[in-house]
Amino acid sequence: MLEKLKPEQIKNCTKNEMNVLCDELRTVIYNTVMQCGGHLASNLGAVESTVAMFYTFDFPNDKIVFDVGHQCYAYKLLSGRADRFSSLRQAGGISGFPKRNESEYDCYDTGHAGTSVSAAIGLAKARDLHGEQRNIIAYIGDGSFNNGLVYEALSSLKILNTNVLIVLNDNGMSISPTVGGMYEILNEIKNGDKASGIKLLENFGLTYIGVKNGNDLEEMLEAFSEAKDLMQNRSVLLHIVTKKGKGYEFSEEHPTNTHGVPPVGSPKDKEYSEVLGECLCELAAENSEITVVSAAMKEALGLSEFFEKYPERAFDVGICEENASVLCASMAAGGLKPYYAIYSTFLQRAFDEIIHDVCAQDMAVTFCIDRAGISGADGETHQGVFDLSYLSLIPNLTVAVPKDTEEFKKIMRFSAEYPHPLAIRYPRAGRTVFQSEDNELTVGKWEYLHKTNSEVTVIAAGERCLIIAMKILQNLQKQGKDFNVVNARFVKPLDTELLKTLAGKYVVTMEDNVFLGGLGAQIDGELVKLGIDCKIKNFAYRDEFIPQGGVAALQSEYGVNCKEIEEYISEILV
Amino acid sequence: MLEKLKPEQIKNCTKNEMNVLCDELRTVIYNTVMQCGGHLASNLGAVESTVAMFYTFDFPNDKIVFDVGHQCYAYKLLSGRADRFSSLRQAGGISGFPKRNESEYDCYDTGHAGTSVSAAIGLAKARDLHGEQRNIIAYIGDGSFNNGLVYEALSSLKILNTNVLIVLNDNGMSISPTVGGMYEILNEIKNGDKASGIKLLENFGLTYIGVKNGNDLEEMLEAFSEAKDLMQNRSVLLHIVTKKGKGYEFSEEHPTNTHGVPPVGSPKDKEYSEVLGECLCELAAENSEITVVSAAMKEALGLSEFFEKYPERAFDVGICEENASVLCASMAAGGLKPYYAIYSTFLQRAFDEIIHDVCAQDMAVTFCIDRAGISGADGETHQGVFDLSYLSLIPNLTVAVPKDTEEFKKIMRFSAEYPHPLAIRYPRAGRTVFQSEDNELTVGKWEYLHKTNSEVTVIAAGERCLIIAMKILQNLQKQGKDFNVVNARFVKPLDTELLKTLAGKYVVTMEDNVFLGGLGAQIDGELVKLGIDCKIKNFAYRDEFIPQGGVAALQSEYGVNCKEIEEYISEILV
Repeated sequence: MLEKLKPEQIKNCTKNEMNVLCDELRTVIYNTVMQCGGHLASNLGAVESTVAMFYTFDFPNDKIVFDVGHQCYAYKLLSGRADRFSSLRQAGGISGFPKRNESEYDCYDTGHAGTSVSAAIGLAKARDLHGEQRNIIAYIGDGSFNNGLVYEALSSLKILNTNVLIVLNDNGMSISPTVGGMYEILNEIKNGDKASGIKLLENFGLTYIGVKNGNDLEEMLEAFSEAKDLMQNRSVLLHIVTKKGKGYEFSEEHPTNTHGVPPVGSPKDKEYSEVLGECLCELAAENSEITVVSAAMKEALGLSEFFEKYPERAFDVGICEENASVLCASMAAGGLKPYYAIYSTFLQRAFDEIIHDVCAQDMAVTFCIDRAGISGADGETHQGVFDLSYLSLIPNLTVAVPKDTEEFKKIMRFSAEYPHPLAIRYPRAGRTVFQSEDNELTVGKWEYLHKTNSEVTVIAAGERCLIIAMKILQNLQKQGKDFNVVNARFVKPLDTELLKTLAGKYVVTMEDNVFLGGLGAQIDGELVKLGIDCKIKNFAYRDEFIPQGGVAALQSEYGVNCKEIEEYISEILV
Repeated sequence: MLEKLKPEQIKNCTKNEMNVLCDELRTVIYNTVMQCGGHLASNLGAVESTVAMFYTFDFPNDKIVFDVGHQCYAYKLLSGRADRFSSLRQAGGISGFPKRNESEYDCYDTGHAGTSVSAAIGLAKARDLHGEQRNIIAYIGDGSFNNGLVYEALSSLKILNTNVLIVLNDNGMSISPTVGGMYEILNEIKNGDKASGIKLLENFGLTYIGVKNGNDLEEMLEAFSEAKDLMQNRSVLLHIVTKKGKGYEFSEEHPTNTHGVPPVGSPKDKEYSEVLGECLCELAAENSEITVVSAAMKEALGLSEFFEKYPERAFDVGICEENASVLCASMAAGGLKPYYAIYSTFLQRAFDEIIHDVCAQDMAVTFCIDRAGISGADGETHQGVFDLSYLSLIPNLTVAVPKDTEEFKKIMRFSAEYPHPLAIRYPRAGRTVFQSEDNELTVGKWEYLHKTNSEVTVIAAGERCLIIAMKILQNLQKQGKDFNVVNARFVKPLDTELLKTLAGKYVVTMEDNVFLGGLGAQIDGELVKLGIDCKIKNFAYRDEFIPQGGVAALQSEYGVNCKEIEEYISEILV
């Protein structure tokens, strides 16, 4: 039924037909996620409310912004994308997040938490100024609702003086169980003590409808009908309670494990996240000053064991990346030794606090930055390809890039004694593949993974690029050609002494980051400063947003192309 | 009395003596700000509460974090810095903000809004884990209290399970009158409708004391005594109402004008901000899609007239830089043409939203970035020296730097038709000094301000650097030497065609920004990419945080030294 169903036909469905539709949506979502990976539990929970919205509203004239986008699969399936849905998260396929360039039904791209309310208000204001007739909806989970940006948006609702509907899908879980002040207010409302929480929402200019069972289609149809009436002359918060993973027993019982599901059969390398958790537990056993802060990602970052073993020193503050950063800076000011574990793309949210709180005060905070470089199937909003650039421009910050999980351990051990801000960035999958030539770790010192007297030196940061470099080396060695390979394990500061020895030689740089401001660009600038002429070639990502796809394919396509690099070096060494 | 007074002696003062002390503090603050510039009104309002805190608490064992720091002058005067206070905001003198390196009484540096509550919580947690006895206080104005980071901090108070005192100094004004949801809740509490607001605070784990008259010493002494008792086993919010500018009639009546006061006798150039306001009014008259968003800075940014003339298209959302950015992105998605005016240093807060909401969606948002480059007397936390770097690394974003106010007008006019994200950055003081050689503005095209057949070309971005370049040119022309001067009015994209013509020549770059990731670094990288050899020398700021001081002196000291540049060029041209 799904592939032939036109969005507007849902309005003619009976309740029975809609219930059948919900079952079908569940099946398709489940099967697709098992094939392609993706967000299962949150999408399963949003099925009934999404069907009810199609019944009630007129998309795409009416507009909806899904916060983060983890709940948009049913919406995509119902808005004319069922026939392509099997390409979910694949190169060139359907995105796991709303994408304007995919369908006129997607009016605003999301991927990071907390933007939906601001976005809905901005869209509603545009509608008002244009004198258009349309309903604007923000659909947001309770995890995102803790984010400071949402609070800023709510505070501006009266200032912008416009009407939106906020659907708060409350499943009591962000990725980890939701925590914090607003969550308790919502909980009180759920548990019947509604007065003060509702009053609070009224202060922000919101009329409250709820609590409704978001997995009961009939209740959803009624609730959206009421909301649609009310929102014609005011802003409305519709509070719905859903079961994350609704409809699949395993997912209902284990919502954290099924939040992001890798496709069945995907390889299970040893992850940097596992190493992180082990290292932090070891270090914490030796040093009682060590604390760990996470922003709603403790499982994905490998921190579960640490949180169990050291609950008094482990803090998951919810999706509050900025607060986590200032907490770390101030814990360091108070004499503690904080570690802040986070995904590369989400750390962008704390950019100002890294500058203003951590680095300007030269606080000994260690950032453990996972999912750095191309992250693959999540696409534009999740690529960790800017961090080398935005971190390296900040004074006082040391930026380390381990060549493998073994070196990551070494850097972690080093970090425990390091009295300044330190960022360690690494990709998702990890291996222990390299033999170290020297064992001592010194800030700003690189190491040769392969040293010869060739005119060519490849300087690469991180496992992915060093593996490419070593493979090219193997290939060319078979042709009797040879070159040096340097592990740039500190992208900041650079190894100036090593660079000086390369005067007049060929230098090739490689990194899993955009070119602008990254390793290669910094080396180019440093050589100018040193007054050294080298024949340099930089391989890094072009100045574009990188869409979803396979990691290796995207690397090649966007600027770190193994074949091109091999050919370039091979031609020099003729 | 002030210069001889030791902090601990305040505990022995009578109430009469403390009232005399308050008067003296006011006089010193007023006189000093008239001499040195600084924040007058907010500091005058905080006098009584500060004296009462010294009476009640034991600084520096007890610790206080001033949010932003605009209220710390009395605290500085009472903590052993009265003898040096006449150096306020001068090079090497007392900072206008809390500074750990200035006194053991300053435990945490601030400057940007909303960090104090997180910082207090982190310090308190460190205290707990260390088993120390001390009270931790966050002192925050109602303007900052709207910032999303504060909300994130409040949400984490129960998670970190620690006790702090939050002093909410409510003068009903941030820089512009405070607006938004939380402000209305506070207002209701002030006006007697306390139940729901207080309940809300309790949900966050805060016990509420208030409302107290923050300019009444006796009431403050009682309130802090009560707060100190309570905070031994819980977190407390003490809500005090003060009059911003208290004690100086002119300041009380005109708190916005006296928020930041320039020293008496400082030159009054025509400001970019004035030009911004005029241009936006002109453009808005022609184009009904134009909207303007500000984050609590409309007067300082020159937007007062626009807000009066076009209230339906002008939005001051309070100190919510992230929300402002997403509002702009979504307004653009809805077909409007939004302008976001902000200081360079504060835009750092919206870094992720610039990437994720504005640029990844290629939205036609124009950022008008004031106080770019070295801002001078406000010091480390307010220098706008990172923007060329953190903006240039973002795909789809064009970065323009006008050479003077006249060119700024031209770029503003250009922006109205430009269908992509655009950042325009400019310093505070502005002039119209240059003759343009061409009149058309094309993205990525520079212009020669002086063209000759010299081997040397100076490429500079922005008025300050171009003025230096032209002065050096005048000096060297007297010696019969000559060089080219290029106005790099687009820092991104670079003028690749022009760069190609400089192959083999001497190139000198100058910018009012850090080197890493800035104009010079981008040119270095571009020349590598083009395979062009030039003899390059980059003048930009070193990789350090730049303290307070005079703009010209700091420019010279941190890497853009006129004399050094002149000597370098002069030696080439021998």
